[in-house]
Amino acid sequence: MAEILIVGFGNLGRGVVKALEITEDMTLGGIFTRRPKEVRKEVDFVPVMDMRDAYLLKDNSDAVAILCGGSGDLETQMPFFTEMVPAVCSYDSHPDIGIYFQKVNLSAKKGKNTAIISAGWDPGLFSIIRILFDALLPRGTTYTFWGEGVSQGHSNEARKVKGVIDARQYTVPIKGAIDRVRRGELPYLAPREMHKRIVYVVAKGDYDRIRDEIAFIPGYYEPYETEVIFISKEEMERDHSSLPHGGFVLRSGLTGENKQLLEFSLALESNPEFTASVLVACARAALKMKKEGKTGAFTMVDAVPYLSPRSWENLLENRFV
Amino acid sequence: MAEILIVGFGNLGRGVVKALEITEDMTLGGIFTRRPKEVRKEVDFVPVMDMRDAYLLKDNSDAVAILCGGSGDLETQMPFFTEMVPAVCSYDSHPDIGIYFQKVNLSAKKGKNTAIISAGWDPGLFSIIRILFDALLPRGTTYTFWGEGVSQGHSNEARKVKGVIDARQYTVPIKGAIDRVRRGELPYLAPREMHKRIVYVVAKGDYDRIRDEIAFIPGYYEPYETEVIFISKEEMERDHSSLPHGGFVLRSGLTGENKQLLEFSLALESNPEFTASVLVACARAALKMKKEGKTGAFTMVDAVPYLSPRSWENLLENRFV
Repeated sequence: MAEILIVGFGNLGRGVVKALEITEDMTLGGIFTRRPKEVRKEVDFVPVMDMRDAYLLKDNSDAVAILCGGSGDLETQMPFFTEMVPAVCSYDSHPDIGIYFQKVNLSAKKGKNTAIISAGWDPGLFSIIRILFDALLPRGTTYTFWGEGVSQGHSNEARKVKGVIDARQYTVPIKGAIDRVRRGELPYLAPREMHKRIVYVVAKGDYDRIRDEIAFIPGYYEPYETEVIFISKEEMERDHSSLPHGGFVLRSGLTGENKQLLEFSLALESNPEFTASVLVACARAALKMKKEGKTGAFTMVDAVPYLSPRSWENLLENRFV
Repeated sequence: MAEILIVGFGNLGRGVVKALEITEDMTLGGIFTRRPKEVRKEVDFVPVMDMRDAYLLKDNSDAVAILCGGSGDLETQMPFFTEMVPAVCSYDSHPDIGIYFQKVNLSAKKGKNTAIISAGWDPGLFSIIRILFDALLPRGTTYTFWGEGVSQGHSNEARKVKGVIDARQYTVPIKGAIDRVRRGELPYLAPREMHKRIVYVVAKGDYDRIRDEIAFIPGYYEPYETEVIFISKEEMERDHSSLPHGGFVLRSGLTGENKQLLEFSLALESNPEFTASVLVACARAALKMKKEGKTGAFTMVDAVPYLSPRSWENLLENRFV
């Protein structure tokens, strides 16, 4: 039975605990956190350890680490942990994945460990799909739509506006654009033609000014049609405490003269819980890959053959193939 | 530049020719067929050889064979070819895949070659998706729907009925059943609740008897609601000469208390051309896997990391990851 260590205990870490409850071949071994006292109040069934003691893992562990921090934390944590144990993470700062990969690759090779980086649904599952779609239907165009779902980054930006007490941003894919791709039109789509943004805001002060300031935040809101809806603190708590998300990857293309459409989509009531479930499957893959001597950094595309807990016989018997 | 040999020249073989026209890293080297004289009338730009001369490949070829015959042909052809060259096929007789795998595995290992079997969209791409969905969302139910599209097997059965001159069967997924799965209901669905069958028939004689005889063909039609539509020979040629197909894989499940829905779908104007495009990507994978010493039989799940012609740098730069 493989042992899992959770590193960092927020929504994602909690999701990993839930995912392990229904996983037969892996078990939770412990949690590393910067706030051990607090986390111990929530978790009393495994050791909760101070992050500063993680160096003790060196030469003392057969576990796999699932790192549950944000991309900023991961930049220092993944190189540190992969020198000691196999590890997986959901690093999602797209433009920096190349450099991050190199750093983790060096440390994982040094520690003779396997690291799977940027796991989750995007990057992760969507990356696999985009690569498959391009390889299997070379003449075509791929479109990725996100939502409907909560973006933490956009919510945070809205919260910085003066007078805003709380904000929750939903990214909404524009149905008409998806339909055009499904019809095989291959349209050029500007950002504002693919997504719009709806922000629920609890605020004090001048609503018109707040609405304008949010709508014009460069990068985050300015390129999109943004709808700002003011609600009460009670409504925010009642209606906007869950973290749904999802998205679509569509590829429209041709073989000969014939139109071919490939489509993948997710509708998630809990984004962090699904990401956690993916990370647990990747932990299994990391262990199997290490046993085969595949050390260094990998992405989920390399992990595909190793994700399932089922044997070949079981896959055949249950008509997976 | 890798060289491809097509073995068997029907709709699928023609699709491989078209797919190779837009593939930069592979080129068509030749065709083996049982009807070399006829095929030479259609193809004059590469050698068209008699199937009986295929034994000459032994120790004389660096090519990859793409076998384009039906499952019956493949049972003898794949063991024969994989002793000589790497090879891929779209063997799709689901209950026999286990035994077929063992036979091909033995001959491929003997020839130190790589074989990728059961490639295409189902089995193939759908197999990858079903295995991923199960690994990434372990608590849930997967549903596969096929269509709307032409089933050659069902068309052939209808043609056997006395008085039928020509027949074309479309498998149609039942929209209401897909919607129930999308809503997260996890229904138990009998075959007739998932698909219906529409058969276009050109016939001479008693339409009522023909309609009844088709509708009660056991296995093929009896378990389903079947609609028989009589048309003229001209209408058949005009409206039913293409081979569209497609399908859906849906997984509905839970993490904790939260519903999660994963969905994959294809809408293909040409089933054989898309299958051919998949086989070409698998030929690339087979060559790369052989270079890594991965010999024996594999399915597309093992081939995923090898399907793309792009380098890691190219994937990063173009935001596939």
